[in-house]
Amino acid sequence: MDNNHTTFPKVIIIGGGFGGIQLAKKLNKKEVDVLMLDRHNYHTFQPLLYQVATGGLEPDSIAFPLRKVFKSQKNLNFRVADVLEIKPDENKVITDIGDYSYDYLVIATGSETNFFGQTEIEHFSMPMKTVPEALNLRSLLLQNLEEALVEQDAVRKEALLTFVVVGGGPTGVETAGALAELRNHVLISDYPELDIKTLRIFLIEGSPRVLEPFSEQASAKAKEFLENMGVVVMEQTRVNGYDGKIITYDTDKTINTKAVIWSAGVKGAIIPGLEKAEIVRGGRIKTTTYNKIIGYNNVYAIGDLAYMETKDFPHGHPGVAQTAIQQGQQLGDNLIRIINNEQPKDFDYYDKGSMATVGRNKAVVDLKYWKFQGFFAWLTWMFVHLLFLVGFRNKAVTLMNWIINYFSYDRGTRVIIRKFNRELMKEEMIAK
Amino acid sequence: MDNNHTTFPKVIIIGGGFGGIQLAKKLNKKEVDVLMLDRHNYHTFQPLLYQVATGGLEPDSIAFPLRKVFKSQKNLNFRVADVLEIKPDENKVITDIGDYSYDYLVIATGSETNFFGQTEIEHFSMPMKTVPEALNLRSLLLQNLEEALVEQDAVRKEALLTFVVVGGGPTGVETAGALAELRNHVLISDYPELDIKTLRIFLIEGSPRVLEPFSEQASAKAKEFLENMGVVVMEQTRVNGYDGKIITYDTDKTINTKAVIWSAGVKGAIIPGLEKAEIVRGGRIKTTTYNKIIGYNNVYAIGDLAYMETKDFPHGHPGVAQTAIQQGQQLGDNLIRIINNEQPKDFDYYDKGSMATVGRNKAVVDLKYWKFQGFFAWLTWMFVHLLFLVGFRNKAVTLMNWIINYFSYDRGTRVIIRKFNRELMKEEMIAK
Repeated sequence: MDNNHTTFPKVIIIGGGFGGIQLAKKLNKKEVDVLMLDRHNYHTFQPLLYQVATGGLEPDSIAFPLRKVFKSQKNLNFRVADVLEIKPDENKVITDIGDYSYDYLVIATGSETNFFGQTEIEHFSMPMKTVPEALNLRSLLLQNLEEALVEQDAVRKEALLTFVVVGGGPTGVETAGALAELRNHVLISDYPELDIKTLRIFLIEGSPRVLEPFSEQASAKAKEFLENMGVVVMEQTRVNGYDGKIITYDTDKTINTKAVIWSAGVKGAIIPGLEKAEIVRGGRIKTTTYNKIIGYNNVYAIGDLAYMETKDFPHGHPGVAQTAIQQGQQLGDNLIRIINNEQPKDFDYYDKGSMATVGRNKAVVDLKYWKFQGFFAWLTWMFVHLLFLVGFRNKAVTLMNWIINYFSYDRGTRVIIRKFNRELMKEEMIAK
Repeated sequence: MDNNHTTFPKVIIIGGGFGGIQLAKKLNKKEVDVLMLDRHNYHTFQPLLYQVATGGLEPDSIAFPLRKVFKSQKNLNFRVADVLEIKPDENKVITDIGDYSYDYLVIATGSETNFFGQTEIEHFSMPMKTVPEALNLRSLLLQNLEEALVEQDAVRKEALLTFVVVGGGPTGVETAGALAELRNHVLISDYPELDIKTLRIFLIEGSPRVLEPFSEQASAKAKEFLENMGVVVMEQTRVNGYDGKIITYDTDKTINTKAVIWSAGVKGAIIPGLEKAEIVRGGRIKTTTYNKIIGYNNVYAIGDLAYMETKDFPHGHPGVAQTAIQQGQQLGDNLIRIINNEQPKDFDYYDKGSMATVGRNKAVVDLKYWKFQGFFAWLTWMFVHLLFLVGFRNKAVTLMNWIINYFSYDRGTRVIIRKFNRELMKEEMIAK
């Protein structure tokens, strides 16, 4: 089942994330035959997943059909496929819908949740890296409130009303903030029978400060924002375990909770078969300075999955959308150079800054020469995220939702479409 | 676990559909203690379910949180609960979260899909009465197209590209029309590799005409609209069976198809325990002219579930939203009369007319003295449905979606969030 209808070099891109899309777009109208494979038929706009989980947005605002993204790109085919194995010696990828051969392979599978080998935590806590996971989390939060209403046992009731976010990176901070907004503005009127003050939100971070990669100023302000909203922020705190009822931290301290959201780490989403590749810390694959996987001649890795040492980034680049986007664009140009027997150019990361939103009128922005927080940072965050969504039709709906939510202090999507089943737990509930 | 905190009469309403909501609203600020039970935490705006199934709308446009609907109603409590049994002798309902006692019980559970005892059809075909069912259908349609792309066997490929809608009532007509629009405007550009003409859509109706309860003029025009859009309309055609691959009709004729949408009938959603009630055709419960279930003194049924004979409607009222809404409102007033030892008033149905939309600029409207079809009917349909959504915040998002879809000929939500699993089939895929 080869995509053998032209004599142009065949480029296979595994993954339709930020990196894969940018790479594919760079190959538009070039003399290559592109096949993109993804296990979903849509791109996930991961920076806003937490809004799906907390009932602010519906999936269609952050999940864009990949066929639509590439509608006018004639040299690209798209397939929904699960890549099971790479056979670099045969220049082939093995998938659940057949085998495809390539001249150039780009792995842009990104990262997946890292539980650091703690299987019990993995079993009982909620990750938030995919749309189904975000929807499961939304269902669980609402189910817990409904259950708490009729729970007679005080300990179980407390556990149902306690949400613990583990990991104080941007995702953790934004999730904890969104949960606090949900509690302070929406749940308080939805559940008049509950004393909403008993609804507790914890944010646990292992390092000395939340938003560790940001400036100290941003970290301090984010913490202040969260605490003002009623989130208990625990820094320099290590989670030891979670059994579905009790989370243990700092060896012997505990919190009763039926909802642990795990945003404490990611690792590269590696596909079996690249025996010669060097895997470094965090499951990243070591590449040259133009994203070629060391050990192979025609296999590349970009984005979260790629580990590249440069002068400015001797320990690899940050695992953010900007890295993936810039590497995708650069590799697109480089592949054409390589095909034309020209020298590929080295990757040079341009840091556009970082930002995270904590809540209404509350965000932190770190630019190279300017760091600011508060209302204007929040406007900036909104503007940048909407700009990102340009080209996707969903922008208008997202904007409309945000405007309505802003003025109404409301979140419309607090519906449990599919109940999250504790017995089945994650594995069975999440369609791949 | 009784809701025993007042001495007002306790009214339990089972079901937060059109009827249940209207009834509850009529009891606002009255001296009653209302408990509403629903297995979902949201109201389903069923008339637009087909738009969720065909990728035009996301669930939040048609699923409204019931807690939000009753936010300011002080005498109402809401519980997500599955009612397992009614014990009329003890004035109790048994649910999965405990037992509740009542002084007055109103059953407003509506209707569910009727497969008329054909278990094989029930197993293999797709109903569309709930949001999860509509989402399953959406996933299946998109999955079939993806599978067709890589299918080598001609018969299986034909089956994957054939959609059969069984039942030519408003739901069936609207679904077939929406599928045709999806094919003609969206899929044709999404799947350039497929010859989109091979994507066939059938609408099968047992009676002599589609939209049988409508005027003959409306039926004829709806059929003409559908045929112009490329739908094969088969009237006076009886489906005999469907085994997951082949649908059989008129005894020995067949169509290869991997997608049968079943909208051929409904039956009352009956709860066990009402031994003395008389169940008539279609699983409806016989009531007096003020919705009291015959055989009981304090148990009522409204909407799709209720069968009431009146002078104008000697065989019961139409199973539409208007019936449920008007009966809910009337019973609300009547319950107060009954509590005050006054005479309840007889139900008098006011027919506001019927309408169905087939596609862009194409709808049929039957009013008492005026029947019209086409663009103006379509505008009317849009206006009435948006008016209905008033009070729900989702109106704005729905309108925005429709405007964008209208001008872009696009449907943004063609994403497979959860794969529909043929092996697991419906029972396991649909959370209650």
